[in-house]
Amino acid sequence: MQAAVVGVTGYSGTVLYQLLTQHPAIEQINLYDHANGSDTVRYLDEEISAFRNQHIILRRYDAAAIMADNDVLFFATPAGVTSQLVQPYLEKNFPVIDLSGDMRLKDAKCYAKWYHKKAATVDQLAKASYGLAEFNTPTSNYIANPGCYATATLLGLAPLVLEKMVQVDSIIVDAKSGVSGAGKKLAASSHYAFINENAYVYKVNQHQHIPEIMQQLKIWDEKIKTIQFTTTLLPITRGIMATIYAKPKQDCTLENLKKAFNKYYVDKPFVRVLDEGLPNIKDVTYSNYCDIGFAYNEESQTIMIVSVIDNLLKGASGQAVQNMNKLFEMAENTGLPVVSMWP
Amino acid sequence: MQAAVVGVTGYSGTVLYQLLTQHPAIEQINLYDHANGSDTVRYLDEEISAFRNQHIILRRYDAAAIMADNDVLFFATPAGVTSQLVQPYLEKNFPVIDLSGDMRLKDAKCYAKWYHKKAATVDQLAKASYGLAEFNTPTSNYIANPGCYATATLLGLAPLVLEKMVQVDSIIVDAKSGVSGAGKKLAASSHYAFINENAYVYKVNQHQHIPEIMQQLKIWDEKIKTIQFTTTLLPITRGIMATIYAKPKQDCTLENLKKAFNKYYVDKPFVRVLDEGLPNIKDVTYSNYCDIGFAYNEESQTIMIVSVIDNLLKGASGQAVQNMNKLFEMAENTGLPVVSMWP
Amino acid sequence: MQAAVVGVTGYSGTVLYQLLTQHPAIEQINLYDHANGSDTVRYLDEEISAFRNQHIILRRYDAAAIMADNDVLFFATPAGVTSQLVQPYLEKNFPVIDLSGDMRLKDAKCYAKWYHKKAATVDQLAKASYGLAEFNTPTSNYIANPGCYATATLLGLAPLVLEKMVQVDSIIVDAKSGVSGAGKKLAASSHYAFINENAYVYKVNQHQHIPEIMQQLKIWDEKIKTIQFTTTLLPITRGIMATIYAKPKQDCTLENLKKAFNKYYVDKPFVRVLDEGLPNIKDVTYSNYCDIGFAYNEESQTIMIVSVIDNLLKGASGQAVQNMNKLFEMAENTGLPVVSMWP
Amino acid sequence: MQAAVVGVTGYSGTVLYQLLTQHPAIEQINLYDHANGSDTVRYLDEEISAFRNQHIILRRYDAAAIMADNDVLFFATPAGVTSQLVQPYLEKNFPVIDLSGDMRLKDAKCYAKWYHKKAATVDQLAKASYGLAEFNTPTSNYIANPGCYATATLLGLAPLVLEKMVQVDSIIVDAKSGVSGAGKKLAASSHYAFINENAYVYKVNQHQHIPEIMQQLKIWDEKIKTIQFTTTLLPITRGIMATIYAKPKQDCTLENLKKAFNKYYVDKPFVRVLDEGLPNIKDVTYSNYCDIGFAYNEESQTIMIVSVIDNLLKGASGQAVQNMNKLFEMAENTGLPVVSMWP
Repeated sequence: MQAAVVGVTGYSGTVLYQLLTQHPAIEQINLYDHANGSDTVRYLDEEISAFRNQHIILRRYDAAAIMADNDVLFFATPAGVTSQLVQPYLEKNFPVIDLSGDMRLKDAKCYAKWYHKKAATVDQLAKASYGLAEFNTPTSNYIANPGCYATATLLGLAPLVLEKMVQVDSIIVDAKSGVSGAGKKLAASSHYAFINENAYVYKVNQHQHIPEIMQQLKIWDEKIKTIQFTTTLLPITRGIMATIYAKPKQDCTLENLKKAFNKYYVDKPFVRVLDEGLPNIKDVTYSNYCDIGFAYNEESQTIMIVSVIDNLLKGASGQAVQNMNKLFEMAENTGLPVVSMWP
Repeated sequence: MQAAVVGVTGYSGTVLYQLLTQHPAIEQINLYDHANGSDTVRYLDEEISAFRNQHIILRRYDAAAIMADNDVLFFATPAGVTSQLVQPYLEKNFPVIDLSGDMRLKDAKCYAKWYHKKAATVDQLAKASYGLAEFNTPTSNYIANPGCYATATLLGLAPLVLEKMVQVDSIIVDAKSGVSGAGKKLAASSHYAFINENAYVYKVNQHQHIPEIMQQLKIWDEKIKTIQFTTTLLPITRGIMATIYAKPKQDCTLENLKKAFNKYYVDKPFVRVLDEGLPNIKDVTYSNYCDIGFAYNEESQTIMIVSVIDNLLKGASGQAVQNMNKLFEMAENTGLPVVSMWP
Repeated sequence: MQAAVVGVTGYSGTVLYQLLTQHPAIEQINLYDHANGSDTVRYLDEEISAFRNQHIILRRYDAAAIMADNDVLFFATPAGVTSQLVQPYLEKNFPVIDLSGDMRLKDAKCYAKWYHKKAATVDQLAKASYGLAEFNTPTSNYIANPGCYATATLLGLAPLVLEKMVQVDSIIVDAKSGVSGAGKKLAASSHYAFINENAYVYKVNQHQHIPEIMQQLKIWDEKIKTIQFTTTLLPITRGIMATIYAKPKQDCTLENLKKAFNKYYVDKPFVRVLDEGLPNIKDVTYSNYCDIGFAYNEESQTIMIVSVIDNLLKGASGQAVQNMNKLFEMAENTGLPVVSMWP
Repeated sequence: MQAAVVGVTGYSGTVLYQLLTQHPAIEQINLYDHANGSDTVRYLDEEISAFRNQHIILRRYDAAAIMADNDVLFFATPAGVTSQLVQPYLEKNFPVIDLSGDMRLKDAKCYAKWYHKKAATVDQLAKASYGLAEFNTPTSNYIANPGCYATATLLGLAPLVLEKMVQVDSIIVDAKSGVSGAGKKLAASSHYAFINENAYVYKVNQHQHIPEIMQQLKIWDEKIKTIQFTTTLLPITRGIMATIYAKPKQDCTLENLKKAFNKYYVDKPFVRVLDEGLPNIKDVTYSNYCDIGFAYNEESQTIMIVSVIDNLLKGASGQAVQNMNKLFEMAENTGLPVVSMWP
C-alpha cells in the first residue's frame, strides 16, 4: 500500500509518519504540502530536524494525484482546513483517515458554535464515520479519527454508561494534558517560561471536545446529561490523564466495576484494565495503549476512573493507524508498538 | 524576638528560615537539631548548599533551653515526631507554631487511622488551636498550622460552605501538587525519571488531609458530607492547584459566587479573588498568596473553583509566619513577601 | 526615593519591580510604557497575572516627566530601543541604570556587528559606565548593567586574568542558560515541546555577550586572546552555569586558586567562593549571589571554574539594584535578598 | 533466536526488552533474575508498570540453563556484579553482550581505581571485545558494550583523532546527561526537587568513562594526552550532549572537518553528520542515532563538535542490539527504529 499524508509537519503528522515507516503493509509514504503557497519546494528533513536523514519531498497538494498514487489518505491538517478539502475524496469514496476535528460532529451548527469556524456541509458530515476504534466499526470510507481528550474520556466512561451504572447527571471529568496537545503554533501558554513549573486551566467549559464526547455518550445512553469537562495544561510534552468522577446508580463495588470494564475491553489489544491501582501517564507514553484504573470511595459514594493515553498516539496518530488497520481489515494492532517505553 | 526552629533541614524548615531572616521582628533565629543522635555538630551551611554563607550551628535539642532562649518555637518536624515533643511547651503555655500534622485533628483515633502513627493524647490535642489563618483566631499559644492541601481546599470551599450555597454531598476536589509536598525523603515517586513527564495519582482516598478538611468543614456546616478528595503528583517542585467541583443548592450565578467570595476575603491580605478567569500555579509560587477563581457551567450545573497556593509558603511556612504574626498581634502580613515572583 | 521603570512587562522588568517593592529606600515605583502607541491605558496587574493585586498604571513615556518625578530611572527595554531614548538623560546627567545591552560596548562598530542594530553614538557610549558591580565603581550617572552571561563569566574569570594565572589563548567557556534569558517573545526555541527534555546550542560563536566579555577582559589584561564562548539553552526557567576551562601558566594548585579567588571576593557580599566542590544552579536561583567553585585536573592540566547565577537577579535586575545602591552610596546589598531560596 | 536478559528491571534492561520485542530475529526473550535471593517469583509486569501486559516470569539465574536455552545473553547488570558472572560464558565461548562497565577496560588496576570495585581477572578482560559499533568488529564472542558518555564522546572525536587534526593536549569535553544515566537507584541527586530547574556537575575529574575513552583514543593515536572530561547532570530523563573543544593542528576549515567526518560515517547507518548547524538532544532521543555537528571559530582557533545520543539507546541498549546484529552477521540496523521520535 501507498499512504498519503497531508500535514506531516505538525505534531500528529510527524508521529504518524514515524508509525507508518514501521507499518508492514505500507510500502511508501507520500507527503503532500497543503499549506505551501509558494513555488519553493520543501523537504521533510528540513522541516523536522529529528528526521534529518529523511530527505523526502513534500509534493504539491493535488487531490486527483493523491487518489491516483495512493491507497489511503491521512489528513493531519488543522480544523477549519480539512473540511475545505474533503469533497473530492467523499465523491470518489476514497479511503481517508481524518485526524482533524472537522468531520466528527454530525451537527454542523454545533461544530460552528464550538470550533468558531465554518462547518462542512451536512451531506459531507453524514458520510463520515466516527472512529472510536474500540467501539465503532467503519461505516464508510471516511473515518473521523477521535480527539485526544475524547478518546481518553470515552474509553474511561464507556462501560459505566453502556451498563447504566452511574447517575446521568453526575459525571465530572478533570482532564490534564501535555503541551503537544495544543500543537506547534507559538502561543503564550506554550512558552516554556509560562507552563514550566505551572498548571493552567484553559478553555473553561468551552473545549471543543465536549460536544464530541456528548455525541458519543448519547449514542450509548440518550439520557446522559452534559458532563462537566475541565482541561488543565501540564508541564509535560506528551500524555493525557482523564480523571473521571461519577455517582453510582445503585450499590457499587469494585467487583462490579471490574466486571463492567473487562466485559468491554478483555479482547481489545490497546486497552489495559488494571486489576488494582491507578495508571500514571508514563505507563502509556510512546505507545498506543489506553490504561484504565478505578476506585470506589464508599465514604463519598464516588466512583473514580483514571484513563491515560499518549495524546499523539492513541489520542491521534496511533488510533489513526488502528483505524486504517480496521478499514483495510488487517489485525487492529498491525504495525503499532507492542510495548510502552520506559523510562 | 528570638525564634527557635526545629527541623530546619526539611523543605518547610528551610523556607521558614528564609522567611524569618526577612522578618523585621525576628532578631535572631536559633536552630535545634532533634534528629541528630550523634555527638557530631551540624551546621546549616553544610546541610543546605544554597545557604552556604549561613554558618549557623544546629544546637542540641533541649526543651528547657529552647524556652529560656526564645520567644516562639516552630516545629518543622515530621508527623509522628512532633507529638513526642509537645508536652513541655503545652505545660508552660509556650508559644508554638507546629507545621506538622500531629496536632491538627481533635480526634486521636481519627489521627491514628489516617496517619498510621501513635496520636498525641486527647488532652494535648485539646490545647492546640487549628490555625487556618483567614478564619481562625488563636485560642491558645499552640497553633497547629494547617496542611498544604487543606489550606488550598478550605480557602476555596469556605464561602460556599459557610453560605450554604452547595449541595452537601456534591463536593469533589481534584487537587494537584508539586513534588516538594512529599518532602526530602528519597522515594520512587520523587525520582526524577519517574515523575518527570508524568502525573501520578497517589494515596487514593487515603490522604491524611481528608479528615483535617472534614473537621473544619463540619465546623462551618455540620451537614457537609465526606468530600471526594484526590491528590495527583505533578512534575513541578512547588505549588498546589485544588480544582473543586460542587452542585449549587439553588439558582447559581457568577454574581452570587463573586459576592460570597468577596464577603469573606475582601479584607484578607493573602487571598486574591479573581474578578474573572482562573488562576494558574505560577501566579502564587514563592508568595504567601492564595488565588481563587470560579466558573459556573449552566449546562452541567456545576460550580468550579480553582484555588492555588505555594505549598511551602501559604501551605506551610508562610502561613506559619502569618500565624506567628497573629499570635503576637502584629499585622498579619509582617515580613512576608508583598508581590509574587515571575517568571 | 522614587524610581522609574521603563519596560516592566518584560522578565527583567518584572523581577526589578519585585525587588524595588522590597527596597527600603524606594518609596514609590513609577512605571512608564514606552511600547504602547495607542491611547489605551495599561495596568500592571492586567499585564502580569502574578501581580494581580498591583493595580498600577503604566504612564505614558515622557523623559522630562520621568526626570521631574523620579530620582533614578531603570531601562528594562530591549536592545535597539534603549539607545533611542538615552539622550535626554545623558544631557541632564540623570541617574540611569540600563539593563539593556545598548550602552555596554565602547566601540559603536562592534555593537553594530554583534547586535545587528544601529548603535548609540560614540559620544553617548563614552558617557556610560560599565557596571560589573564587584569590580567597577560608577564613573558617571549612566550605568550600563552587564549582561547575564557576561556577569557569570567575568566573575568566574576575573581572578585568573587579573592575576595572570592562565595561558592567554586557552580560555573556553561552556555556558548554559535557562529559557527566561531569551525573553518573553514567542520563539520556536522557547516552545515547551521543543526545549523540554532537550538541550540546544544556539548563536554559535555569535553571542552578543562575547564582545562585552572581551572588552572587560582586555581591561584586566590586554594580552588575553578571544575566548571560545558557547551558549546552551537548558530546560529550566531561570539560572546560568558558566563552566570555564583554562590552562595554567605555571604550576597550579588548588591553594593558589583559592587564594586568588578569595583575594578578590572575600569582602564582596554577593560572591560566594566555595571552599571545596562546585556549585549547582539552584544554589543561587531567586538570589543575587554568584557562587564560584573550582577544580584543577593535573592529568589534563586544566583549571575548571564553575560560576552560577540567577540570570534575572545577579544577571540583570539584582545587579541593577546593586548598582543603584552603589551609585547612591548605600550599602551594596540594601534591599536585596539575604538568603537563597530552596527548594 | 532466543535471547536471555539479566537485569531487565534497570533502565537499560527495560529499554533492551522493548527493542528485542521488535527485533525480527528474536523469537523469544527469556528473563533471568540475578538479584533475587528469595523464593518469591517476580514477574516483569509487576516490576515495570508500563509493561503491565507483559506477564513474563523472571527465571532463577542459572548460567548453564541460560546457555542451554538461549543463543545470546545480555547483561544489563550493574558494574561490580557482572564480573562475578562472566566466567562460565567465557569458558564456553557463549555469545554475550555486556552493557555494564566491568569488561571494557583491559587494565584491571585501572578498573579498580576508577570503579572502586574488584576487577575481573586479566584473563577474563583479555577475552572481551570492546564494541564501539562503528569502529570495532567483534574479535570474540564477548562484547563489552561501550558506556553512554564514551559512545557520544568517541564518535565525536574519532575523525579528529584518527586523522590527527587536533593538538594532542587540547581536547576538552563538556558532556551533559539526563538523569536516567545514573540509574534507577534512589539518590539525592536524582530527587526531583533537587535536579528539576537545576544543573549539577558531578564526579569532577573522576568519571569512570574517562579511562574507557582514553583507552580507545590511544588505540587511534597513542600520542593523545588525557582529555579534560566534565559531566553535568541536566533536568531531562534521557539524552546526552557531548560538547567537544579542541585546537586544530594546522589550518582548519569547515570543509576539512566535513570531509573527515564524512570519511568515517558516510556508510554508517546510525551516525548522521550534519551539513551545517548543530544537533540538539531531542533530534535523537528514542532512536539509535548519534548526530554530530561541528563549527570552527577562527577568532578563538577552536573546533567545537556537538555529539548527541539517547543514553539508553545508542548509549546502551540500542548499541547492544547493534552489536548483537554485528556478532550474528545481520544487517547492523536490523530491528532498530528507523526514524527518531518527535516531539
